[in-house]
Amino acid sequence: MAIWAVIMAGGSGTRFWPLSRQMRPKQFLNIGTERPLIVETINRLKSLIDVNRCTVVAGQIHVEQLKACLPGFSDDRFVVEPCPRNTAPCIGLAAVHIARHDPNAVLVVLPADHHITDVTTYQNLVNRACELAEKGHIVTLGIKPNRPETGYGYIKLKGHIGTQTKFESDGLHDVDRFVEKPDLQTAKTYLESGQYLWNSGMFFFTAQTLLDAYATHLPEVSKGLSAIEAHLNSPHYWTELEQAFTAMPSVSIDYGIMEPISEDVGDPQIKVLTADIGWNDVGHWGALSDYADVDDHGNVIQGRCVSVESGDNVVYADTSTVALLGVDNLVVVQTEDAILVCPRDRAQDVRKIVSALRNSESEGLL
Amino acid sequence: MAIWAVIMAGGSGTRFWPLSRQMRPKQFLNIGTERPLIVETINRLKSLIDVNRCTVVAGQIHVEQLKACLPGFSDDRFVVEPCPRNTAPCIGLAAVHIARHDPNAVLVVLPADHHITDVTTYQNLVNRACELAEKGHIVTLGIKPNRPETGYGYIKLKGHIGTQTKFESDGLHDVDRFVEKPDLQTAKTYLESGQYLWNSGMFFFTAQTLLDAYATHLPEVSKGLSAIEAHLNSPHYWTELEQAFTAMPSVSIDYGIMEPISEDVGDPQIKVLTADIGWNDVGHWGALSDYADVDDHGNVIQGRCVSVESGDNVVYADTSTVALLGVDNLVVVQTEDAILVCPRDRAQDVRKIVSALRNSESEGLL
Repeated sequence: MAIWAVIMAGGSGTRFWPLSRQMRPKQFLNIGTERPLIVETINRLKSLIDVNRCTVVAGQIHVEQLKACLPGFSDDRFVVEPCPRNTAPCIGLAAVHIARHDPNAVLVVLPADHHITDVTTYQNLVNRACELAEKGHIVTLGIKPNRPETGYGYIKLKGHIGTQTKFESDGLHDVDRFVEKPDLQTAKTYLESGQYLWNSGMFFFTAQTLLDAYATHLPEVSKGLSAIEAHLNSPHYWTELEQAFTAMPSVSIDYGIMEPISEDVGDPQIKVLTADIGWNDVGHWGALSDYADVDDHGNVIQGRCVSVESGDNVVYADTSTVALLGVDNLVVVQTEDAILVCPRDRAQDVRKIVSALRNSESEGLL
Repeated sequence: MAIWAVIMAGGSGTRFWPLSRQMRPKQFLNIGTERPLIVETINRLKSLIDVNRCTVVAGQIHVEQLKACLPGFSDDRFVVEPCPRNTAPCIGLAAVHIARHDPNAVLVVLPADHHITDVTTYQNLVNRACELAEKGHIVTLGIKPNRPETGYGYIKLKGHIGTQTKFESDGLHDVDRFVEKPDLQTAKTYLESGQYLWNSGMFFFTAQTLLDAYATHLPEVSKGLSAIEAHLNSPHYWTELEQAFTAMPSVSIDYGIMEPISEDVGDPQIKVLTADIGWNDVGHWGALSDYADVDDHGNVIQGRCVSVESGDNVVYADTSTVALLGVDNLVVVQTEDAILVCPRDRAQDVRKIVSALRNSESEGLL
């Protein structure tokens, strides 16, 4: 079995402003980590997948920076998206490139910018998922929830799987459906039901399985991918890619194939493996305590900070010293040209600052 | 009448950390002003006092910086204190230097680092105070209080002067006594009584009146000043100054001569002029709204700031942009190497940060 990684590094998020910028999105940051998140993601795969089978998909503007981050990667390990078209075209483009070498290659599709603390369990699950994928399944990891999180999509499992704390010991389930981010009340019922897992955005299938699924459920994407495939070795590749890729609909793999296939009751092609691996999608500054060390006063601190009578704060000091006096539950982020101060429970709204900066013509800070 | 200014610029305060440092105390900062506070202080006197009669008293380490701030001042306008000895020796040293030119010179003694918004009224009061000083009085400006402030000393006026809002129209009073900073309850009774004014720390007297008062009430200071006077033109001036000044007691002019003279019931030598001049001692970051402009949301902003759903904050951004999201009543101060975040009502405790830095061996930030 040939296992290939597809690392989705196209993010351009603003949720970690002022540290994240257009030219330095989350995957390049070391948030709660020693190395940039994308490097951590790839390091977790090192013992499983040969570096020559790791494909990184990203936008043109980030490719040079990615190459600098990943010195062991040859140039052909980077697949460039001419424009953002969400995950279905992104993964499809990688699949086309990999299928040229081996249509039966098993693809391990991963976001570049997540945290995982229990790497051993994670690696075991990846191996298990690849075995299932090789047999033609579409597999995903569903994260065992520990709180009624409203920031994640959920996967509803098929049938009765018992209480919240008693998932099937095997951890393998058929999928009833993929559901969007719920409100708090709904999230609580999900948690209590024991039938829902968090959608991790990690997927496993062979290149051929994926391309077949696109042919059935995403014909426009499929058509574009065929056009690209026909020019893989052509000197006109980039022109053809630009044209075909730009013409594709912007659609997520969840919405584009996972949901329709899971609705196909007769065919339990989609499998989910329950994963209890210390996973976090590193969503916003306020959640940093979920995956970084806290001090005796509940402060999460990266960088230089002096704190007096202050607790439960999140501090990221890049080039300067942050001094806290008598404050609680704040996020304080310092970079060379900007400081963010907000309550932890407002950290998800940091894009409002980005909008305000755009309106005030402070593009230099975007 | 020869009027001389004595600007006390010996402050080394930490209350405006991280903007104020050992090498850059408050008088050098432009807090709520366009120019450094000491420049503003001297500009207010320009139409009253010739620049060649402005004497600045400061510590050795700040003299070069003061010269840079005050390019119109010749070198002999700076009187250096070999060590800090509080206001009585400081003013006495200036008086000795000025008395050499003219013992009958009227001294206008001012802290270097206060705010005054009503400059015309202030200048009229200075003129009036100088006239009284020329006649042998010791005069001070007492600020009409508008709140039960616990951060200032008070001056109790002699006799009954009516309600809080009905000070003598003439505004000239004899002094009953000088009192220390009160607690809140006491401050409230002071405010209600209409008998108390804030002690502004501005004084007016002739050089000879002052030196006579020292001879009577501060004999040790007086003795030291005589020793210094004897060496004013000597090549050994600095050595003699160091020795005599260091030997003086550290004592404030309030405690050293104002209080004992005001207790001398038979001789109403001390006069206070009621001053309603928009005065503020620029005590700490939290009080910045008392003398700086506020925006529609009650934020006081100096420097680049983007603010979303945030009100009543004090922001000072020196070299960077501060972004506030959903926060109220905070102080956020950014300098090149440090950021302070604290609630406005904790700003008076910023020295706790300075202590913590000292303990953590972060001397570079002091």
